[in-house]
Amino acid sequence: MNNKATQYTGNKQFAVIDTQREEPGAGEVRIKVAYCGVCGTDVHIYHGMMDKRVDIPVTIGHEMSGVIDAIGPDVSGYAVGDRVVVRPLDNRAEKPSDKGFSHIAAGLKFIGIDSPGAMQQYWNVPAFTLHKLPADIDMKLAALTEPLAVACHDVRLSGLTAGETAVVLGGGPIGMLVALVAREAGGKVIISEMNPTRIALAEEMGFNVVNPAKTDLVEYVSEKTDGGLADVVFEVAGVQPTVDVMTEVAGIRGRIVMVAIHGQPRPVNLFKFFWKELKLIGARVYEPEDYDKAIALVSAGDLQLGRLVTSVAPLSGVQSVFEQIDANPDGMKVLLDCQA
Amino acid sequence: MNNKATQYTGNKQFAVIDTQREEPGAGEVRIKVAYCGVCGTDVHIYHGMMDKRVDIPVTIGHEMSGVIDAIGPDVSGYAVGDRVVVRPLDNRAEKPSDKGFSHIAAGLKFIGIDSPGAMQQYWNVPAFTLHKLPADIDMKLAALTEPLAVACHDVRLSGLTAGETAVVLGGGPIGMLVALVAREAGGKVIISEMNPTRIALAEEMGFNVVNPAKTDLVEYVSEKTDGGLADVVFEVAGVQPTVDVMTEVAGIRGRIVMVAIHGQPRPVNLFKFFWKELKLIGARVYEPEDYDKAIALVSAGDLQLGRLVTSVAPLSGVQSVFEQIDANPDGMKVLLDCQA
Repeated sequence: MNNKATQYTGNKQFAVIDTQREEPGAGEVRIKVAYCGVCGTDVHIYHGMMDKRVDIPVTIGHEMSGVIDAIGPDVSGYAVGDRVVVRPLDNRAEKPSDKGFSHIAAGLKFIGIDSPGAMQQYWNVPAFTLHKLPADIDMKLAALTEPLAVACHDVRLSGLTAGETAVVLGGGPIGMLVALVAREAGGKVIISEMNPTRIALAEEMGFNVVNPAKTDLVEYVSEKTDGGLADVVFEVAGVQPTVDVMTEVAGIRGRIVMVAIHGQPRPVNLFKFFWKELKLIGARVYEPEDYDKAIALVSAGDLQLGRLVTSVAPLSGVQSVFEQIDANPDGMKVLLDCQA
Repeated sequence: MNNKATQYTGNKQFAVIDTQREEPGAGEVRIKVAYCGVCGTDVHIYHGMMDKRVDIPVTIGHEMSGVIDAIGPDVSGYAVGDRVVVRPLDNRAEKPSDKGFSHIAAGLKFIGIDSPGAMQQYWNVPAFTLHKLPADIDMKLAALTEPLAVACHDVRLSGLTAGETAVVLGGGPIGMLVALVAREAGGKVIISEMNPTRIALAEEMGFNVVNPAKTDLVEYVSEKTDGGLADVVFEVAGVQPTVDVMTEVAGIRGRIVMVAIHGQPRPVNLFKFFWKELKLIGARVYEPEDYDKAIALVSAGDLQLGRLVTSVAPLSGVQSVFEQIDANPDGMKVLLDCQA
């Protein structure tokens, strides 16, 4: 039986090929993929920035929803027809020196980068990566589970409590998801973003948004908090100006969550860490409970997640999808319909 | 009645003057100062680096022990003859925006910098700054309570638990105190230090010491921990090489405590914070419980604190004490005998 699959072939090119569906091996299931979102990391791969890491030609993609299509030997607790998402972390190389932090183990393989991903019709994965979805869930929104779990992880590690002020530096897809989860946790959320389309979207979704090119963010937050400034700051933008402002906008004992990936060392005002007893908290991917939380949030349907879906395109249109994402910095989340 | 007092008069000069003992005001006590240690901050003042902050001529000093000599109106719970130390934090300007973190309130006055200090025979202080000492305590070692409380605060905020590996970057007075408190808490302590005299002292006190100019610190710690690296890192040195190494020597989910004062922004490997989910924890001064812990440690007598006392000099020798500290980078803690 056929399986239509996309392949990144290098040089900003994707191929769409017809292959055979593979039978799931021991401990694996085969998933009929419903939708697969395009992550910033996927765009990074498309740009050739990770050619040394990926095994070209490679099927990428890890933000997905799907239905179990076949079950291999030695898998229990799942049935054909179960709606599922994959937590794409393969920690089978975990060592004692990882101290039990499986999700960031030194030998971690990221499924969809280090091994084949979800931008295809049928996808075989280890059963230990699965989380079940409720039968009535919206499968498009369920494809947002993975990035939403990132946001749940970030907010959980921040220790944000109801009534605290959270400043999100960067209103892209992850920043918006962090803002939504932080608000759902009872935080008073302020987003700092410069892109007018993203500002408009965030405002439509009910957030206080500051354009730091026009308004002094620290003054704004200080006024809103009677001088207390931010209890929590999420650095999601990954640029020097947000690194500069994160230590200014954080109040006394403020917690700064480092969500962004900084490709080079950045000058950081370490004096402010000392003076205000700030905390910097690195946060990467997610743990199982973050997936559980994300699924519950998608299922509850209160987060207006549909507004973050810019477009849905057929799997065969993968090349133009990546080209359009490149051409449109305003966009949020694009989904591939993997059966279309 | 007379009070012999030292005064920093600017330009690397101290005067020794005879003034009058003042009666303690409402809420104050007068302390007959026993010993006063010289802090790095005091040396900073001597170097003229804080001339804009201090009110020249000024009596400095805040690492002290003493005996209550007189009690002002509206003070309860203390008696003349009580042995005490002062927690030199005046938080009377605290505001709601300080969120209850009195010890680092934005309007905090540091007694001995922002108001007169302990390098004199008799010193009036607010009673709310006092901690009582046991009657049989060694008053020289009790003068180490303040810097030891810094170390207790640092170790407490690190969350160090028994069996964890702690790397202390910098084996000066604060670094050594941090190492002692970390070891007392059950930590396996490794000190990184380049000064041969300080290395020898730390080794005599039973510590593993690495000279990073001769030995690769990260490799050393990796070998000692089967690749797990440091659970906790204390950055006490305040220079770029320790900022560079702190993110390397910390293991997965490692906590880095920022004890040092960095006068300028430093390039920091933020990627490592993300990748290993590191925490950076700013730590400044102390809270009352840190003083209680420090007093208990001095009193128990198990920390070999006496080995950190390089010399004891008479109050009147203050000028040569500061000159000698400047000339001798090997020294640890110098005490002034405030009654000699």
